[in-house]
Amino acid sequence: MTAPRFLIVADGDFGPMTSKTANSIIRYHPERTAAVLDRQHAGRTVQEVLGFGGAIPIVGSMREGLALGPSSVLIGIAPKGGQLPAEWRAWLGEALDAGCDIWNGLHNFLSDDPTLAAKARARGRALHDLRQPPADLPIASGLAKAVDPLVVLTVGTDCNVGKMTAQLQLTRTLNERGIRTRFVPTGQTGIMIEGWGIAVDAVVADFIAGAAEWLTLEGSKQADVVLVEGQGSINHPGYSGVTLGLLHGSCPDALILCHQSSRQYIGDYREAAWLRIPPLADYVRLYESVAAAVHPTRVIGISLNTYDLSDVEARRMCDRAQQDTGLPTTDPVRFDSAPLVNAIADERTRYLRTRKAQ
Amino acid sequence: MTAPRFLIVADGDFGPMTSKTANSIIRYHPERTAAVLDRQHAGRTVQEVLGFGGAIPIVGSMREGLALGPSSVLIGIAPKGGQLPAEWRAWLGEALDAGCDIWNGLHNFLSDDPTLAAKARARGRALHDLRQPPADLPIASGLAKAVDPLVVLTVGTDCNVGKMTAQLQLTRTLNERGIRTRFVPTGQTGIMIEGWGIAVDAVVADFIAGAAEWLTLEGSKQADVVLVEGQGSINHPGYSGVTLGLLHGSCPDALILCHQSSRQYIGDYREAAWLRIPPLADYVRLYESVAAAVHPTRVIGISLNTYDLSDVEARRMCDRAQQDTGLPTTDPVRFDSAPLVNAIADERTRYLRTRKAQ
Repeated sequence: MTAPRFLIVADGDFGPMTSKTANSIIRYHPERTAAVLDRQHAGRTVQEVLGFGGAIPIVGSMREGLALGPSSVLIGIAPKGGQLPAEWRAWLGEALDAGCDIWNGLHNFLSDDPTLAAKARARGRALHDLRQPPADLPIASGLAKAVDPLVVLTVGTDCNVGKMTAQLQLTRTLNERGIRTRFVPTGQTGIMIEGWGIAVDAVVADFIAGAAEWLTLEGSKQADVVLVEGQGSINHPGYSGVTLGLLHGSCPDALILCHQSSRQYIGDYREAAWLRIPPLADYVRLYESVAAAVHPTRVIGISLNTYDLSDVEARRMCDRAQQDTGLPTTDPVRFDSAPLVNAIADERTRYLRTRKAQ
Repeated sequence: MTAPRFLIVADGDFGPMTSKTANSIIRYHPERTAAVLDRQHAGRTVQEVLGFGGAIPIVGSMREGLALGPSSVLIGIAPKGGQLPAEWRAWLGEALDAGCDIWNGLHNFLSDDPTLAAKARARGRALHDLRQPPADLPIASGLAKAVDPLVVLTVGTDCNVGKMTAQLQLTRTLNERGIRTRFVPTGQTGIMIEGWGIAVDAVVADFIAGAAEWLTLEGSKQADVVLVEGQGSINHPGYSGVTLGLLHGSCPDALILCHQSSRQYIGDYREAAWLRIPPLADYVRLYESVAAAVHPTRVIGISLNTYDLSDVEARRMCDRAQQDTGLPTTDPVRFDSAPLVNAIADERTRYLRTRKAQ
């Protein structure tokens, strides 16, 4: 199949920290992005809003967007309240009429919407519900601890701090160094970028670890290193169960802790300022101790997201995190990713030596 | 509605440790149990197989069972492999023809089976799929930490060690002492016993904590103490995500750690003897530290399941656990539940004092 050309819907919420799915598609597949639909920023370029993405236009209506000839419409943000607004449903209907497929990463499946499903059928278009889990997932049984490659999982201090982005950057650099590295997508955005994966937050709760195990086994084929995309955070009041199932199911040999430097509170509860993000060293201890209850592992580096800081500030944050934890630290998007790439390469050497010794 | 009279299907797996759902219904609602269907033990009484349950007969065929006039057939074990055997489907068809409803706690819903669903419709009978989660569950937002009653969650060293049974025993005794106590069912068996609840292992992964929060709020109405049924274990390779989501979503003020004294390995992996169960004191530390990342709590007692030990051995296990952890310990089914009941009552006094002081 030919690569899709996306019109990304991010109406009302397009921005550096708000439209995570849209931004990741633009970062990793700018060539696939025809335009972004957001009435608030219509007329500007993506570069002007995000600080990357170049001349990709932002349009103010579905009609303008469709005129640019996309093959697919991709839902690039979660609408407020979680439900698809009536206006968006009308847009998606227009897009199907114009011959587009739809890519949807929301918890609500478009194939469950009788009107859109009927229209897609009639027009011969596809509704890709990327969070729809496969049938017959296994219960995890520890198979992931026996795979050949080194398995590295990103873990976070919160949601939306850069766990996927870190792995994508590192995958690229490790492969450039000749270390065969595969990225394992565990969320809808990663799946959109890679074309395979399972959204582990959308499976039935008993199968979180089983999905993680299946993904790790699948990613291990013909790879030296497997970089598993992390989800949520071990202290996230809503999503910690997904985080732990992923941690225990993928049996990682090493962890990279991801943090957004300017964030002080667990994000989804920012208004209430409920949960202050504890020091990174506390996260290191907590992740290592709870992981070790199933499979021993250790944090080998810190990945910071410093998008909203000055260069000087960003550098200072990296230095401080490195001091506080004693671990190699970088922002792999902004600075050289070498500290983390080296940490993974060294860990792989150690891992191969230990394996041989056994 | 009148209480159901169950014919419990436990064919091929009826026994003290194998048929958890069947056994719990029999323990808490013997008056609702007309018979058990198990060809292997047909002709014996439930008492002879389980050590409790009295003269309830075990029959060897659906026809014999239906002749005893049950109002409902209840699936009391998980069939090997998880799929409903063809033979069982035929039995359930017979039961619907005879005018029975079906109670099903399996992950597979009978209402998704076209043949059984059509037959139930035609006969006007109900298929109760108890693991079917409600629509529109919330994402947890910390509401459970603000409820009025003292919230106590059971946590375990493994699955199937007595987390539900402990809470049911304690609910009964606390109410007898005049402390208004409500049991909150989080699994299919608890739901069968209480007539309400959510099977938190069957919700979409992102909503585990949200389901736990909803249940805790619901259980808090007109109660002094809420006893939440725990699930799985923090170090269970398959189910730990459910355990943590429940722990963070219900924001318990206190925990009771449950263990089956004779068990050495995490149960579902017994053949591989993969994961040795660590000392109880390690569990206390791990549960408290991972819970505190969202809401501070502490383990206030140990509940042992000693069903397979002699009286002397059982008493010795309680003494040893109490020594190892410094916490009040009992087997609330076998011995006096007072040590745990007192621990909860004391914790409630302390809790009310702290609240008042704030």
